[in-house]
Amino acid sequence: MNDVHRLLLTHRSIRKFTDEPISDETVAEIVRCGMAAATSSNIQATTVIRVRNRETRQRIAEVAGGQQHIVDCAAFLVFCADVKRPNLACTMQGAAPTPGMTEQFIIATVDVALAAQNAVIAAESLGLGICYIGAVRNDPQTVSDLLELPDHVYPVFGLCIGHPAQDPDVKPRLPVEVVLKEERYDDRGDEAGVKDYDEAMRAYYRSRTGGTKDSCWSEEMAQLVGTERRPHMRQFLADRGFEMR
Amino acid sequence: MNDVHRLLLTHRSIRKFTDEPISDETVAEIVRCGMAAATSSNIQATTVIRVRNRETRQRIAEVAGGQQHIVDCAAFLVFCADVKRPNLACTMQGAAPTPGMTEQFIIATVDVALAAQNAVIAAESLGLGICYIGAVRNDPQTVSDLLELPDHVYPVFGLCIGHPAQDPDVKPRLPVEVVLKEERYDDRGDEAGVKDYDEAMRAYYRSRTGGTKDSCWSEEMAQLVGTERRPHMRQFLADRGFEMR
Repeated sequence: MNDVHRLLLTHRSIRKFTDEPISDETVAEIVRCGMAAATSSNIQATTVIRVRNRETRQRIAEVAGGQQHIVDCAAFLVFCADVKRPNLACTMQGAAPTPGMTEQFIIATVDVALAAQNAVIAAESLGLGICYIGAVRNDPQTVSDLLELPDHVYPVFGLCIGHPAQDPDVKPRLPVEVVLKEERYDDRGDEAGVKDYDEAMRAYYRSRTGGTKDSCWSEEMAQLVGTERRPHMRQFLADRGFEMR
Repeated sequence: MNDVHRLLLTHRSIRKFTDEPISDETVAEIVRCGMAAATSSNIQATTVIRVRNRETRQRIAEVAGGQQHIVDCAAFLVFCADVKRPNLACTMQGAAPTPGMTEQFIIATVDVALAAQNAVIAAESLGLGICYIGAVRNDPQTVSDLLELPDHVYPVFGLCIGHPAQDPDVKPRLPVEVVLKEERYDDRGDEAGVKDYDEAMRAYYRSRTGGTKDSCWSEEMAQLVGTERRPHMRQFLADRGFEMR
């Protein structure tokens, strides 16, 4: 294990930040590191909107269910999947773009995630803390309106970056034996692996909360995939030019 | 700029590998680093299938348009978006999963990309080279059949990992001023930025190929988004339980 592995393996989301600012140069460097990630056919379908305006941040925090760290963090970035820019390049060549394909949606969404994760590693390597905000998708239309996002651009997630004012434990992950399979999808050991992980998560929550939180992974998954989360996404995306053809 | 930034900023895809193997422990460590990435509500919707069988690799290389590095690399991994496992956890709690939501598809796809990019950084920090293989989506049904992927699991991309037998230049990226915007989506400078980048890419290709390749970004984008790429994806996903509701 080397220093980079140690950095990766000690990631935890930070939701409390000090007032210490981050320079514009550092934010640009973090984004530059993000864009250095692999990108499908070099499409670079990522646009990052930096939100400084406090009122805009407060509106986004409301969308995200009241996550105050969106307001308090030194730098708040919204990572957008952007097919408008390659479409522009296409029209600059006199050709007609073909928007709305499911495959384009996958390419753009993956591109954004690869770039964001590189940006996260760049930030964490500086001792900064981060928190992804998937909850911008609670009301992606309001977020799009606030950021004046055009068609063929959608907000995938937000990212809070700042100097940590907390030091939470690293959350255990599923055993690697469950996640990494050989040659084929063999899930005969998965139920036992999930049970082991449930116990690990229960112990983690108890220790972190002094015994008040008593939950486990499968209970959380029952809530997460047992309800129709964000059912507006399909229509929202179709309205913005991602018809999923 | 620190060592981690230097590592991130010098990424380039490697498509020629030496015969030197990678130990099983190293592959497990790389995947463990991957899974340490942030994950939406801890869903960990990533399953990694390691393919050792040479015939299977050859079949996947054919799907991917004859990419020999899929056969030659020390470790070939297929990163799958896996909603089946959280569904299993849900049923272990006596609850009924609600598959097929567009939002679940986004969560799972983003999760896989975050984990994969962490795995890539872990591998590159060891001096290994990598190449993402999005072209598994050329024929995702054949790849799914080869890996016996069940419903609610789809192959997002492959990943070749190995000891580099080439040392290509780092490909220039779009100017950070085009990608990073302030407060709102303002694309008034994008066309000029794309033109600058076109010149940088033209010079890069000329220098790399001794003048034989004369192309630029917007020409490549005209080919990429000016044609209906992988139009089978929508139906393939629907058939596998990703109905995009």
